[in-house]
Order: sequence, then structure tokens, then C-alpha cells
Amino acid sequence: MDARTEDGRVVIGGDARQRFYDARGYGYPLEGNEIAVSWVEAAHLLLRGDLDAVDGVGFEPFLRDGAGDVTGGDRAALTFLVYLDLRERGFYCSPAREEWVDDPDDAVDFVVYPRGKGPDDDAVAYAVRVVGERESIPAAELGDCTLAIVDEESEVTYFETGRAGWEGTAAFEPGEPVEATLLADRALCWDAPDELYGRAFYGQPLGKRDEGVDALQLSLVETAQLVAAGALEVEGGYDAVVERGRAVEGERFDRRLQVYAALRERGVVPKTGFKFGADFRTYADVESVDDLGHSERLVRVVPGDFAFDPRDLALDVRLAHGVRKQLVVAWPRDGEVAWVSIERLTP
Amino acid sequence: MDARTEDGRVVIGGDARQRFYDARGYGYPLEGNEIAVSWVEAAHLLLRGDLDAVDGVGFEPFLRDGAGDVTGGDRAALTFLVYLDLRERGFYCSPAREEWVDDPDDAVDFVVYPRGKGPDDDAVAYAVRVVGERESIPAAELGDCTLAIVDEESEVTYFETGRAGWEGTAAFEPGEPVEATLLADRALCWDAPDELYGRAFYGQPLGKRDEGVDALQLSLVETAQLVAAGALEVEGGYDAVVERGRAVEGERFDRRLQVYAALRERGVVPKTGFKFGADFRTYADVESVDDLGHSERLVRVVPGDFAFDPRDLALDVRLAHGVRKQLVVAWPRDGEVAWVSIERLTP
Repeated sequence: MDARTEDGRVVIGGDARQRFYDARGYGYPLEGNEIAVSWVEAAHLLLRGDLDAVDGVGFEPFLRDGAGDVTGGDRAALTFLVYLDLRERGFYCSPAREEWVDDPDDAVDFVVYPRGKGPDDDAVAYAVRVVGERESIPAAELGDCTLAIVDEESEVTYFETGRAGWEGTAAFEPGEPVEATLLADRALCWDAPDELYGRAFYGQPLGKRDEGVDALQLSLVETAQLVAAGALEVEGGYDAVVERGRAVEGERFDRRLQVYAALRERGVVPKTGFKFGADFRTYADVESVDDLGHSERLVRVVPGDFAFDPRDLALDVRLAHGVRKQLVVAWPRDGEVAWVSIERLTP
Repeated sequence: MDARTEDGRVVIGGDARQRFYDARGYGYPLEGNEIAVSWVEAAHLLLRGDLDAVDGVGFEPFLRDGAGDVTGGDRAALTFLVYLDLRERGFYCSPAREEWVDDPDDAVDFVVYPRGKGPDDDAVAYAVRVVGERESIPAAELGDCTLAIVDEESEVTYFETGRAGWEGTAAFEPGEPVEATLLADRALCWDAPDELYGRAFYGQPLGKRDEGVDALQLSLVETAQLVAAGALEVEGGYDAVVERGRAVEGERFDRRLQVYAALRERGVVPKTGFKFGADFRTYADVESVDDLGHSERLVRVVPGDFAFDPRDLALDVRLAHGVRKQLVVAWPRDGEVAWVSIERLTP
């Protein structure tokens, strides 16, 4: 069976409507029994031998010339590999473009229907955005789509992104403020009340607790948040802490402090995520440090205009998955914090 | 018991030699029964209450003033936290400086003796370099030391670094060269001989193998190495592949190709490490892809002048550990490749 290109689409006649659209979810119907399919759909039909040629040309030259050509676009090879992978996993999917779907979305490439459903049904399983390993992904564009990342060996990895909420139960009512001293890039509270560490999980005791030293080491974000909450006093006050933080970390300190404070406000306890390569690990329920569960999430704080290198994202998601925590990326947006969860997905 | 500062050291008299040097490995002996200890050793003796004061000053002001002062140096707080941690783990350790040890080494901070041994014995367990979470670590300085990284909450994480060698058994004798086509940032070999994928584990088949398509997708590094080996022909030859690689990856392509080729030369099969956030995962023994074991190492390729952010290093090491692989960092050095393994260590 042959097909022809027409207005940037591939038009197939004969019994195409029954055979390809109705039965297998390719393209969209035209008048009569003809259908229009996209470049990527046509390439797939050619690969499978369902089509013999488009404009007299077979799979090999069609694929080769389509990569870089107007018909397939610059990203033809990438989108084809993802389409092929989704089809092989048993999904029907359409380009997220006018005519193919009701609500075209430039930010995504494919609409994937639930298994067993097609373009005629009113359901969407995933809105897939195709990304090459060497492209970068702006953080601000995540939250509503599924990423399909094609690596250099043409394997496809899927990440589901979503909006993340927080519901914590950790509460801390500070009593009289206590004194602390800034010490290089941390602070020491010499006479810390027990509940500061033991109940609210601030800081880390200096030395073994049974040696009778009551000093508590605090990070600079903990220190700043405690000073702002009226629980701690430091020479020079809040400004001195923030100044010290900026001196050792630059603007990153402000971002991390904003996220730290937002989490504490939501009743969530953030502790350093260093061992996991993250900014924070978080505990939604802390009653006592002696009875602490595992932390549930890893939080990575990025600037508002940050774009991910797909490989770094793969690293973050894989690590979080391996330690059974959820990865949440956070960035400042309009005076608030945007939270996006990212998880590995096997469609 | 009191002590005094003298020439940048802390001198302790009385029965200090027996009590602190002979019995517990602090400092080095002076004339008579006196010993000299470093700022960090003195701070530890003060914390434990073994010393009451130095120049009339107790632990708290000694620590506070030492951080940023000539006696303790800018990194006083960091080195103290690591010294404290090592002591609490039951190790004796000395500053890696003249008088304390025979072979002082500016690149490391502490010499740690095997458990049960001290400065008088002739054995070293770890040469420890102290790093703050916010400092960076030049890759070229790794390979002979143990990193002790202090995070913002004053926890210490240890990474052992070593020189990594390779012994692979994978061999591939190419037959007549076959043709391939560059397709955006990858290549397609339309009529690939079975052994290219099946035995030598190059590339990835396009589509399901049972659909009768023999096309093999190759990454650009695979393509370049195969063309150089005379196993593949591409329009424009080797230069065209490298040019395409540089167009999509910049200089990084040359680095990665050099490492890829060096691994193949050593009989090791590198495949993409994308899912692990690395450049390559490696197999030392491949006889057939149908009988493939787990890859053993993750390779991260960096520029020769690269410096690690400790948090990224923590991420890489943790992930590799989680998937039971060894992390190897590789960079170009004098026309060859330098290989350094990095592993988590619990002293």
C-alpha cells in the first residue's frame, strides 16, 4: 500500500480508515475512507511493512531524509524512537497537534491513551514530552507532563512529573530564646534545651551525648530560621546569619533558606540531604529523634530559571528511587516555592 | 591540667608524655615529659575535660577563637569535627605535619593509624583529607587519599579514592566493513552483521528483532570507534563522525570518545550509563548479549581540570553503591586516561 504527502501530512487511501484509524489508532479521518497521518506515524507504518512507500520512497530513505527535513522536523529521529517504544509497549498515541487531538499542547509531543483505548475514546494516560539526552529541560516546564528521554544508545527512559504538596505534623513551640555562636559556616548553641534536638530535630549534638557536652551544632539555614522564629539569639541577629550564609554559599543560601522555612511552616522537618546528594531529606512526622522513621522525600533546590541536564535528572531520580524516597524539585516562584515531584515510570 | 601555646603549638607538661602521648597517641614528645599537640588535638583534650585550659582559656572560647585564627586556621571547625569523629570511632590520628609524622603531606590533613596502633607504630590506615561541603575537590588530587567530607549539619562522610586498573576479556575481530548512516545525533547501520550487536555488544537493534528489521542503532562514540577500527563506513569517514559529535556535545565528545576507545582497547565493553546518570557502565567480560551479566562499574568522564562539588560526588558514589557497582572517574592526562575509583568507606 502506498501513500502520498499533502500539506505536511501523509495521506493514505484505500481501506486506511478501517485498517489504520479505527483498528489501530493511527492519524485522523479525512473525507471518505482516507486518513491523514503524521511523519512519525507514517515512518512506523513503513517500518512494520503496513505501508510500502510514501511518495514512492521506502522506510530507510523516508527515515533518513525525514531527520532534519520539514516533514519530520529536526527532532524526527528522537520522536520516532519514542513513538516506536510506546507502540511496542502496546499503547496507541497521537501527536499532540491540531486535528489529531482536541486540546493540542505545544509543550508536549504525544498524547498517549490508556492501554486498550484510542483517539476516539475520551481518556489520556500520559502527556509525553520527548527529550534528547543532550537537550536541557527547564524546571519551570515540569509538573504536568511525562518526560520521555532518549539516551545516546536510543533507549527511552520515562519520568512522570507532578505537583507536590506537603502535609506535616511536626510542631515546635520555642520557649525563651537561647544563645548561639557563629563558627565559620555553622553555628554552635552551647546550652541547648533538650527539645531543640530531641523533639524538634534541629541540629546535631557535638560529640557523644553521654560525655556531658550540651553543645548543639546547627547549620546556617537552621540557625537563620530559629533566629527568625525567636528561638535563638546570635550576635548581629538574623542579618548576620544570612550574611554569613551568603558569604559561604552565595545566592544559593537564600533559595535554600526560603525552601527550608517553607517546609518548617508546613510542619515538615528538613535535614541535610548531603549523603543523598540532595539539599534536604524530609520527615513529615517527627515526635522524637529517638523514634524517628525513614525520611520520605529528597528535596533538590534550584534557581527559578534552572534547566536540567537529563543525565543529572536521571541520577537524582534513580538515587531517590533506590533509597525509596520521592524526589521533589523546589524553586522560588513569585515569592512562594514551586514544588514538583519526579518519578521513574514504566509505562 | 593546664597548657600553654608556644610557637604555634600547644605545649603540655606534667605527666603529659605518659598520659597523652604514650597511652593515647596525642602530639609528639618534647624534652623531659612535655609534649606538643596541635590546635585540634588540644581542642579535643579540652572537650573531653582532660585539659582544663590553654593559656587560661577553656573549650568554648578556645574553639570559637581558633576558628578563623592563626592557631587553628580557617578550617579549624572542619578539621576539629573530623578529628572528633575519627577519635570517637576509636582511631588515633596525627596531623600530617612535620614533627608529628615522618612524611608530612600538604595534600592531606590527618594520618590515621590502624585500630589499636598509634604514632609510634609504623603503619597507616588512611591518609585523610578534610573537605567542607562547600569546598570543591580537584579530580586530579584524588587517587591516594581518603576524603572526609563535613556536611552542613556536621556529619562526616568518608570516601576512599584509589587508582583503578582494567582487565577485560572482550575481543572483537571486525570482518568486512559495513555501511552506516549518520542520523541526527546517532547512526543507523542498515545491514549489521549479527556479531556486531550479538557478540561485541555494539549498538541497539531498531524495533523488535523478530520483526525482521536488521537495522542497528549506534551511538556516535560507538560509530567513531568502529570507523577507526575499520569495521564501519560512514559518508565523510571518521572526521564526519567526530564533527557531528562535536556539533551536538562540544569538547565533551572528544573526552568521551577517548575514554570509550581506551576501554575497548582494554577488552572492556562500555555501554551508556545514562540510566545511572553516568557516562558509561562497563562489562569486563562479554561473550554474548544473550548471556550478559551485570555491568561492574560506572564511569564518569570529566575534563582534566575538573573539580567536584562534594554533593555531586556524594550523589555519584551513593548511586553506584546502591546498584552494587564501582564508581570510576576518568579524565584525559598527557595523552592517556587517568582512572580513579571512589568508594564509600565506614572507618
